Amino acid sequence: MKIIGEKINGTRKRVAQAIAERDAEFIKDLARKQAEAGSAWLDVNAGTHPDREADDLVWLIEAIQSVTEIPLSLDSANPQALNIAVKAVNKTPMINSISGEPERLEQILPIVAENDCEVIALAMDEKKIPETFDKRMEVIEKVLVAARAAGVADDKVYVDPLAMTIATMNQSAVIACDTIRAVHAKYPNVHFTMGLSNISFGLPARKQVNRGLLILAMQAGLDSAILDPLDYELQAAIVTADLLLGKDRHCLNYLKASRKGLFDQ
Amino acid sequence: MKIIGEKINGTRKRVAQAIAERDAEFIKDLARKQAEAGSAWLDVNAGTHPDREADDLVWLIEAIQSVTEIPLSLDSANPQALNIAVKAVNKTPMINSISGEPERLEQILPIVAENDCEVIALAMDEKKIPETFDKRMEVIEKVLVAARAAGVADDKVYVDPLAMTIATMNQSAVIACDTIRAVHAKYPNVHFTMGLSNISFGLPARKQVNRGLLILAMQAGLDSAILDPLDYELQAAIVTADLLLGKDRHCLNYLKASRKGLFDQ
Repeated sequence: MKIIGEKINGTRKRVAQAIAERDAEFIKDLARKQAEAGSAWLDVNAGTHPDREADDLVWLIEAIQSVTEIPLSLDSANPQALNIAVKAVNKTPMINSISGEPERLEQILPIVAENDCEVIALAMDEKKIPETFDKRMEVIEKVLVAARAAGVADDKVYVDPLAMTIATMNQSAVIACDTIRAVHAKYPNVHFTMGLSNISFGLPARKQVNRGLLILAMQAGLDSAILDPLDYELQAAIVTADLLLGKDRHCLNYLKASRKGLFDQ
Repeated sequence: MKIIGEKINGTRKRVAQAIAERDAEFIKDLARKQAEAGSAWLDVNAGTHPDREADDLVWLIEAIQSVTEIPLSLDSANPQALNIAVKAVNKTPMINSISGEPERLEQILPIVAENDCEVIALAMDEKKIPETFDKRMEVIEKVLVAARAAGVADDKVYVDPLAMTIATMNQSAVIACDTIRAVHAKYPNVHFTMGLSNISFGLPARKQVNRGLLILAMQAGLDSAILDPLDYELQAAIVTADLLLGKDRHCLNYLKASRKGLFDQ
């Protein structure tokens, strides 16, 4: 289970402020903490200012890379910004994200292919998220076909089945998990990722719901997630789910996590 | 998801003492608290004294029935004691348990059939628990065939797939969940139940593991469990899993549990 650390995101107020003020120490601190907490990638999102997104992304990348060598997940829908950012990174990055939207496929897939990146593929089309399992599969297959045609191998693609807000869509976790199972059965080399917080929007005790979704999605085949690596309860849920899913021989990781105090937080 | 309250169990030291001293107030308190916490049945186990098990069971039943009307789960492998106990209950009880052991099938199934009880069927044979999924299925099918032959309908049977200690059997949760899925596919009317505490034997932070197993098993089809209904974290996991599995329309139960303070414990 690989973690994409989510905290350096310019749509968050405090991060936006740090970007605007060029407060590199704040960003470095977020990078360092997420790296120490075991992230496999750090997501980097410069926020939604098209005119300065490329500059902001490059500034963020340089700040982060001054304190950690962890690869980055370049979080932007802007091909120009991505084209510039992809040249500023030390290690091959992940691109977050493409979708079934033709414009995004045409403009972003070549960047992914040319730079041998991994890429997150959202199960949505022209900014619309299909409500049924069948339609979601249709969109994902369209994206995978386009990725192959662009020269991007299946094992570079991380499908995000999009777990929507359960308060307004009762079956959203079921559909997300079924989608993972079905894509995995048909495309065994494809990876999966997921944001965990939409699901619980509007509900009390949101972390309870996010953790439960993580465990259920891991059972379905989720092998990475976009989350806050400093959330120790989520980390504990990951270690425990890996154990229960038979992926932790001799309980070594579970026992190591316990010795480190993960379950005492 | 129905709860079988596990706390009135004579193999627990404090309960054994209450039975020996005929301390009815202690038993009534356990019964009352488990009933208030939403149990569907209360398990009643008089401990392991064959000479006085029937007497102890009847005493326990009378104490419990003086404070709650919840049906009981008569937890004994002793046909004589069960035959007496089954006449002491006010409501049709569950019998805990039969297994593939021929002697138990022959002696206990008639009691189940005659009294129209529900019954827990353990996935084990002659006191041996099969280590593989295939062998476990074999035992369960043998029990289900015997139950039908004795006149016990599938929907009276609660299969316990037996989640063994994961510290010594890496795939134990996977096998238990796969067993539930396979039995459900072939025998759609059969119910399931499970004890949650064996899985974490010998590990630190056991509740973490028990909760994770509960969520995964509910995804597989678990519809009841033998557990401590006063464990609020387990209760929160049940409510959350039901929500995520699409079984809580408009999040009504989740919101109700939140208002009652379940997530604040």
